[in-house]
Amino acid sequence: MTRSRQRIVIENVSPEIDGGRFPVKRTAGQTVRVEADIYTDGHDLITAFLMHREAESRTFSETPMIPTENDRWAGEFRVVSVGRAVYTLHAFVARFLSWQRDLSKKIEAGQDISVDLLVGALLAEDAAKRAGGADRRKLLSFARAIRPGEARGVPECATAALDGELGALADRYPDRALATPFGRELPVVVDRERARFGAWYELFPRSCSAEPGRHGTFKEVEGRLPYVASMGFDVLYLPPIHPIGRTNRKGRNNANVARPEDVGSPWAIGAAEGGHKAVHPQLGTVEDFGDLVRSAREHGIEIAMDIAFQCAPDHPYVKEHPEWFRIRPDGTVQYAENPPKKYEDIIPFDFDTPRWMELWEELKSVVLFWAGHGVRIFRVDNPHTKPFAFWEWLIAGIKREHPDAIFLAEAFTRPKVMYRLAKAGFTQSYTYFAWRNTKQELEAYFRGLTQTEVREYFRPNLWPNTPDILTEHLQYGGRPAFMARLVLAATLGATYGIYGPAFELCEHAATAPGREEYLDSEKYEIRTWDTGRPDSLREFIALVNRIRRESPPLQSDDNLRFHPVDNDQLIAYSKTAEDGSGTILVVVNLDPRHTQSGWVELPLEAFGLGDASPFQGHDLLSGARFLWQGSRLYVALDPTAVPAHIIRLRRKVRTEKDFDYFM
Amino acid sequence: MTRSRQRIVIENVSPEIDGGRFPVKRTAGQTVRVEADIYTDGHDLITAFLMHREAESRTFSETPMIPTENDRWAGEFRVVSVGRAVYTLHAFVARFLSWQRDLSKKIEAGQDISVDLLVGALLAEDAAKRAGGADRRKLLSFARAIRPGEARGVPECATAALDGELGALADRYPDRALATPFGRELPVVVDRERARFGAWYELFPRSCSAEPGRHGTFKEVEGRLPYVASMGFDVLYLPPIHPIGRTNRKGRNNANVARPEDVGSPWAIGAAEGGHKAVHPQLGTVEDFGDLVRSAREHGIEIAMDIAFQCAPDHPYVKEHPEWFRIRPDGTVQYAENPPKKYEDIIPFDFDTPRWMELWEELKSVVLFWAGHGVRIFRVDNPHTKPFAFWEWLIAGIKREHPDAIFLAEAFTRPKVMYRLAKAGFTQSYTYFAWRNTKQELEAYFRGLTQTEVREYFRPNLWPNTPDILTEHLQYGGRPAFMARLVLAATLGATYGIYGPAFELCEHAATAPGREEYLDSEKYEIRTWDTGRPDSLREFIALVNRIRRESPPLQSDDNLRFHPVDNDQLIAYSKTAEDGSGTILVVVNLDPRHTQSGWVELPLEAFGLGDASPFQGHDLLSGARFLWQGSRLYVALDPTAVPAHIIRLRRKVRTEKDFDYFM
Repeated sequence: MTRSRQRIVIENVSPEIDGGRFPVKRTAGQTVRVEADIYTDGHDLITAFLMHREAESRTFSETPMIPTENDRWAGEFRVVSVGRAVYTLHAFVARFLSWQRDLSKKIEAGQDISVDLLVGALLAEDAAKRAGGADRRKLLSFARAIRPGEARGVPECATAALDGELGALADRYPDRALATPFGRELPVVVDRERARFGAWYELFPRSCSAEPGRHGTFKEVEGRLPYVASMGFDVLYLPPIHPIGRTNRKGRNNANVARPEDVGSPWAIGAAEGGHKAVHPQLGTVEDFGDLVRSAREHGIEIAMDIAFQCAPDHPYVKEHPEWFRIRPDGTVQYAENPPKKYEDIIPFDFDTPRWMELWEELKSVVLFWAGHGVRIFRVDNPHTKPFAFWEWLIAGIKREHPDAIFLAEAFTRPKVMYRLAKAGFTQSYTYFAWRNTKQELEAYFRGLTQTEVREYFRPNLWPNTPDILTEHLQYGGRPAFMARLVLAATLGATYGIYGPAFELCEHAATAPGREEYLDSEKYEIRTWDTGRPDSLREFIALVNRIRRESPPLQSDDNLRFHPVDNDQLIAYSKTAEDGSGTILVVVNLDPRHTQSGWVELPLEAFGLGDASPFQGHDLLSGARFLWQGSRLYVALDPTAVPAHIIRLRRKVRTEKDFDYFM
Repeated sequence: MTRSRQRIVIENVSPEIDGGRFPVKRTAGQTVRVEADIYTDGHDLITAFLMHREAESRTFSETPMIPTENDRWAGEFRVVSVGRAVYTLHAFVARFLSWQRDLSKKIEAGQDISVDLLVGALLAEDAAKRAGGADRRKLLSFARAIRPGEARGVPECATAALDGELGALADRYPDRALATPFGRELPVVVDRERARFGAWYELFPRSCSAEPGRHGTFKEVEGRLPYVASMGFDVLYLPPIHPIGRTNRKGRNNANVARPEDVGSPWAIGAAEGGHKAVHPQLGTVEDFGDLVRSAREHGIEIAMDIAFQCAPDHPYVKEHPEWFRIRPDGTVQYAENPPKKYEDIIPFDFDTPRWMELWEELKSVVLFWAGHGVRIFRVDNPHTKPFAFWEWLIAGIKREHPDAIFLAEAFTRPKVMYRLAKAGFTQSYTYFAWRNTKQELEAYFRGLTQTEVREYFRPNLWPNTPDILTEHLQYGGRPAFMARLVLAATLGATYGIYGPAFELCEHAATAPGREEYLDSEKYEIRTWDTGRPDSLREFIALVNRIRRESPPLQSDDNLRFHPVDNDQLIAYSKTAEDGSGTILVVVNLDPRHTQSGWVELPLEAFGLGDASPFQGHDLLSGARFLWQGSRLYVALDPTAVPAHIIRLRRKVRTEKDFDYFM
C-alpha cells in the first residue's frame, strides 16, 4: 500500500512487454517512441520526461514528453549503440505552469492578482535555488520582475509573469524529491542493422562440388560466393557442417536404411570424428571454414551457421555424458520421436536431467566456439523443443560477449510459443509465411505481425521455401508462383530468405502428392544444380534485391499497410519510410495462371501526396513510369510476364522551366 | 535472468489489473473466471490449476483449469466471504498423460511398445510415492497391470495402460518441486451484495420539515422513510450533515453574499459548533442521527453519508491545524478555486503539506467515527482533487476494520482519473450517464464500462440527476424524459440513484438557459416539496424498483448486451442471468415527443431460446404478454404513455395437456 506524496500516476506505458520482463527490439539508429497515461489529481499541470541510457551507462538522458489526447503522453529517443538500453519515465507537478495558467484566467476575469504575483515570485525564487549559472540568474531576475513593489505596478508585473519562456524555465527545476517515478526500467535490445534488414540464401555445402556427385568442400562454397553475391544476398546460411552420425543413418528420401554411400542428414550431428565443435571431414577443416567466413565477408556476405542441439547416436557426448540423455528402462538411449514418427538417427538432450546446469554450459560453449571463429549469425534448429529459460540464458550470455550476434529461431509451432521464443531473445523468427497464400491469409497474418505489440519483439524472416518446405503453391504454380512468392517475401518482410539453388531453378517435385517434402531432398543426398540454366530466376532475384537495397521503405517491417483492391487475386500494400524517402507500393497477382486486373485504392494523404495533384509511379521491376492523379489506380498483371509491380511513388515537382518534369 | 528447469509459461492472465497492483471486485457468491495462456516447449501435455484462498487463510484451494483454444486455459472459483481473496495459478508437465497419448499413437501405428509400458509403470510408481491411501494403492496396482511380465502379455498391459481414469490419477500427483508457479498472487476485493446492486435516493434532510420553510430534522427524515421505502429504494444518501460555516456563506442560488436567514451549502463544512465529527445543530444530535440509521434499517434502507474533505473558513481545523492548509503570502488561507471560479466559502486541505501524515490520519478518523455510528456507505465528494495514494490507504484501512464498507466516488472528471480512483479502492463510481442521451452515446459508453477490463474494477452508479446536474434533456423533455431516463438508469445499471423529490416531481427549472444548475437549488436553501402530487412518478419508480428486485438479470452490470433496432430513437438491450433465471429485454424510446416504432433484432441463441419455437414476452411495466416467433420483434412506444418496455422473455413450455401454456 503506497502512502506518499507522489501524486502523479504513470501507467499503461507502451512499449512495455509483459511489465518489462522482456526487452523491445530495435536496431542502432532507430527511435523508440514511448507513450504513457500520465495524470494527477486535481487541476495541476504536469511535466513529464522520458529517461533513457545505455545499459552500461549510469546517467540517464532526459527528453520531455508531450501530451497527445485523453491524458496520453508521448516522447521518443534514438538508440545509438549495439547492446542494451533502458528507458523509464518520471513526472512532476508543474507548479509554475499551473500558476501561470491560473493567473492568466484571473487576469482575463479582471480579478485582483496582487497576492498571486507574490506567489509566483516565491515559486520562481524556489526554482532558482535548484538552478545554476545563467538559468539561476534569469529566474531571480524574473522573480524580481513579477513582484509588485514601489517601482512596478501590477499590470507591468502581470505582463512579465506570463512570459512563456520563463515559465517553462522555472518548471525545468522542479523539486526532484517530489518526482513521481514510473518505477520500472524497461529494456531495449539494440541490434545491428542486419537484424532488421537482410536477404538470406541457404545452400548445402556438400552440393557445391564442381564435379557431379562428389562431396563438396568449403573451398568450393567459396567458389559459389560470386554467384550468391551477384544475386544480392547478404547472408549465406549453411545447414550443420559437423560430422554426421553413422548409426541409424537415413538413406535417400529419408529411407530408414542407408546404403553405404549415403551421406546422411547433416542434422544427425556427431560421429567418431567429433561433435558440435568439429567439422565434417569431407567439407574440410575448421580452418577452411574460417577461410570461407573471411572470403564471404569480402563478397559482402556473412555466413550463418546452424545450431541444432541434438546428437546422432555416435556423437561423443552420448558416451561421455550419458547423464544428459534419457535412458530407457531397457538401457537404450531414447531417440527423438513425435509418435508415431521416429527419428532414430537423432537423440535429443534431456533438459529435465538433474545435471542440466552442466548441459547448459556445454551448449553455450558450442556457440561461443563458433563465435570465436568469426560467426555472428546463428540459425537455431527447433528451439521450441528446448526450454525457454535455456534460450533466454544462452542468448543473453552470448550477447554479453558478442552484442552483434543474431539468432534466428526455426520454430514452426504454435503462435504463442513462437512469440515467447522471440521474447526470450531470438533476434528473428521463421514464420507461417510459406503457408499464407491467399490475400485474406496474408493480410491477416501480416497485420498481426506488424500492427500489434508483437512487432516490438518478433522480427519475421520470410522463407517461401526451405529444405523442409516445398508448398503445394510452389509445386503446382510454376515459375509465376516462384516469382510472386519471391516478391511477396522480399517486400512484405525486411528480412527474407530462399533455399537455393532449388528456388531460383523452380525445383518443384515433391515426394508424393499432398506432401511438402522435396523429392531427392538434399537433406539426405548430394545434389548437382545447373545454376547457369537460362530459365533460372537468378536475374529477377538480383533485381528484387537491388530494389530492396535502394529503397529504405522496404528495410522495415512495421511500416507495412495494406490497401483495398476490388479483385481478391490482387494484393496491394505499401511501405513508407520514416525518413521521408518516400513510398514503395507493391501489387502482386496471387493467381499464377491468369492475368488479373483491378482498382487499387490508395491513401494518398498517408503517402504525403496531395489528393488533387498528379504524381509519378516508377515500376522498379519493369522500369516503366506512369503519371497518375487521384486515389484509384488501375492495375493489370500477367503472371507469365512479371506477376508484380514494385512502384516508387513520387510527388510531381514543378519548376519554372519544366512543367512536366519529375525530380 | 531465469535459469531453471521450470519449463511452463503462464502469462497473459485475466483478470489481472496492472500486473496485480490492483484488485478485481466481486460480491460474495460471485465467481471469478480466470484465463491464462499456458504452454511449454516441446510436445508434452500440461495440467494447470487455479489456486485461491481468502486473504486470511494460509491454504489454497485448487481447481483444475481447462484448455479452450490456442493455448488459452480457463477456470473459475466462487468467492464466499466479504473481505479479500487472492488467486494464482501453477502448472505441471503432465508426464503420464503425455505418455498415454504417445502410447496410443504407437499402438495405432503397430509399433513395439514393450519398453514404453515399462516407462509407464515407472511413472505410475513414481506418482504413487507422492499419493496416499486409496490413490496410492490404485497407482501401484495400475503399475503392476501395465508392466509386461510372465503373467501378462503386451496387449493386455496396453489395454490397462490406456485407462483414462488412472492416467488422470497419476498426474494428480506430480512432482511439485517441478511446478511452474505463475509467480504473483492476484487480489480480489469481495464486497457485499449492495456494492453491486441497489437503488439510491438522495434528499436534503433540512427540506424534510412538515412545516414549509422551517429547517428539517433527523426526526423528520425518519418520518420520510416510509415514503422512500414505498418507492423501493435501498439506500438513502444525505448530503453533509455537519455544522455549516458562516464566513463567506453563499446565499440562495449561489449568491456571493448571504442574507442572515440563508442556510448555506452543506458542503461548506465546519463552524464554531464543530467540524466533520459534529452534526448541524438544527438537524439534531449525533444520537438523533444514530436513531435515523437504525430506523432506516427497519425500513430496509441504509443511510449513506457524504464525505467531503474540505472546510468552511470557520472550521475548527483551520485554527487548530493551520499547517494543513495553504497560507498565501499575505497571511490569508487559500480558499478553493478553479480559476476564474472562486469558492470562498470552502478551504481545501493542502495535501502537499509536510504534515501530510497527520492530516491523513485525522481524515481517516472521521470515517471511522461515523462507521462507529453504524454508517457503512460513504459517498465521497470530489475525490479526484485529493491524492490517489490517500484514498488507496484510507479505504484499505477502513475496510480492514469494516469489510462491508462501501465507498462511492463522486468524480465527474477525466475518464482515466475516474478509473484510477476505482482501482484505488472506490466500491462504486458516478458516471457520465447523465450526459449520454443518444443511442450511439449510450451504447458506446456502456460497452466501454461493461465489455472491457474496466468492468473488473469500476462499478457504475447511474444518476439521471443530482443536486448539481439538471441536464438539458430533463429541462426540456418533460415527464417522458424523466420516465425514460429512470428506466435507462435502473436497467442499464445494477446500481442507480435519483435526487428527489426533485426527480419524481419532474422539477426542471434551471437557473438560466444552457446551465445545468437547478433554480432555487436545495444546495443553498430549504425547499418544500409536495410529495403527494398526483403527477408524481412515485408509483412508476416503485414499479421499476420492484421489477429490479424480482429480476436477477437486472442485478448485474457485465451481462449487458445491446441489440440492433432500425430506428435510432429506439435503444434495445438485454441482460441474461448467469443462474439461468432468464433474460430481461429493455426497449426505450429516447424521443420524449413522438411515438417511435421499429424492428429489434434479437440473438435468440444467446438467450437460450430456439430460433424456431415460439416464446413469450411479458412486459413487466404494462403487464401485457405477447407471443413471438423469430428473431425480429416489432416495437412501438408512445412517450406520453410509457416510453419503455421491460420484457421478461420466457421459453414456451409444452405439456401433454396444454399446448399453449408458458411456465
